[in-house]
Amino acid sequence: MPYVNIKITNEQVTSEQKARLIEGATQLLVEVLDKNPSTTLVVIDEVNTDNWGIGGRVVTELRAEAKTPP
Amino acid sequence: MPYVNIKITNEQVTSEQKARLIEGATQLLVEVLDKNPSTTLVVIDEVNTDNWGIGGRVVTELRAEAKTPP
Amino acid sequence: MPYVNIKITNEQVTSEQKARLIEGATQLLVEVLDKNPSTTLVVIDEVNTDNWGIGGRVVTELRAEAKTPP
Amino acid sequence: MPYVNIKITNEQVTSEQKARLIEGATQLLVEVLDKNPSTTLVVIDEVNTDNWGIGGRVVTELRAEAKTPP
Amino acid sequence: MPYVNIKITNEQVTSEQKARLIEGATQLLVEVLDKNPSTTLVVIDEVNTDNWGIGGRVVTELRAEAKTPP
Amino acid sequence: MPYVNIKITNEQVTSEQKARLIEGATQLLVEVLDKNPSTTLVVIDEVNTDNWGIGGRVVTELRAEAKTPP
Repeated sequence: MPYVNIKITNEQVTSEQKARLIEGATQLLVEVLDKNPSTTLVVIDEVNTDNWGIGGRVVTELRAEAKTPP
Repeated sequence: MPYVNIKITNEQVTSEQKARLIEGATQLLVEVLDKNPSTTLVVIDEVNTDNWGIGGRVVTELRAEAKTPP
Repeated sequence: MPYVNIKITNEQVTSEQKARLIEGATQLLVEVLDKNPSTTLVVIDEVNTDNWGIGGRVVTELRAEAKTPP
Repeated sequence: MPYVNIKITNEQVTSEQKARLIEGATQLLVEVLDKNPSTTLVVIDEVNTDNWGIGGRVVTELRAEAKTPP
Repeated sequence: MPYVNIKITNEQVTSEQKARLIEGATQLLVEVLDKNPSTTLVVIDEVNTDNWGIGGRVVTELRAEAKTPP
Repeated sequence: MPYVNIKITNEQVTSEQKARLIEGATQLLVEVLDKNPSTTLVVIDEVNTDNWGIGGRVVTELRAEAKTPP
């Protein structure tokens, strides 16, 4: 019955990686809390880097800077 | 003043169906708790089936299996 | 498989009212989208009025003003 | 370490406006609670007007009515 | 930078179990998506069984029935 | 009509600080996006430090270590 929401930036995450996140999060709830997997929901939100901030900065800008040589 | 968030899979939900969800959820808060509808917000998130898991499985796969004859 | 989150202020909501919210929200998803109720989750968050704002004002204050004769 | 989620309707919000929301929300947490900005996350969800309701009405309809002369 | 929210019922979850959920969810994001753990947030919401529904029923009732001999 | 959710650790946040968060977040939406404050909702979730993790560690432990001399 647990509900897990994973928010990540939308940066070429593959279907296979999403499947691993869903399987892993479900397994975690089973192992730690003995939850019933059949009613465990996992929802992955992929967020545009323009819409995600850390340190007061937009991730799109941080990614661009990381690629720019000094 | 309530806030209702409805998360569903993104599978051909029509505008008319969304309107019914919004109307119905708002009406529910009015009937049960006498809330003011004019400040009741309802937000519907449609989630790609690749991003939704149940039972540790991705919904995209579950849907494909349901269509496959044994 | 839908997930519904209802956020309301924590103001003497009874267990019976919560049961009606849960039943009503689940029924809404069944009627409008033919969802499977057995895997439909509803989570109600009761939020302290100190922690809820509307119009830039804290609800605790708005409630106090509503009780104060002019 | 705070997490801020801002949900707004998807109506021509520019990257520059999103950057201001992220910067402003982070600054708010620093000023009011002395939080560390470097681990403060801000996520902006832009929601289709078909998927947002207020007063039991879909925002798409409300916007259309606001443009219609009586 | 990911954000993970785990919602579970409030039923004697220990601090040690919460620590395992936090560690496990963070590790999952590192393994599958090579995310930076130092800015990965995990928030666990423990929800009163009166406030959680599945199948249109309140969990408090479901738990009581499970303990009642037929 | 925007909805803002602020999640912070539950560590002696005062009512006055919460009022400033609510006022500031609402003002931010007005200034940046010209939103109507009267239907702008702000909800603050105060999360127990046992239930919040960063870097795969529970905040309760991180706080204890920060107070411990080497």
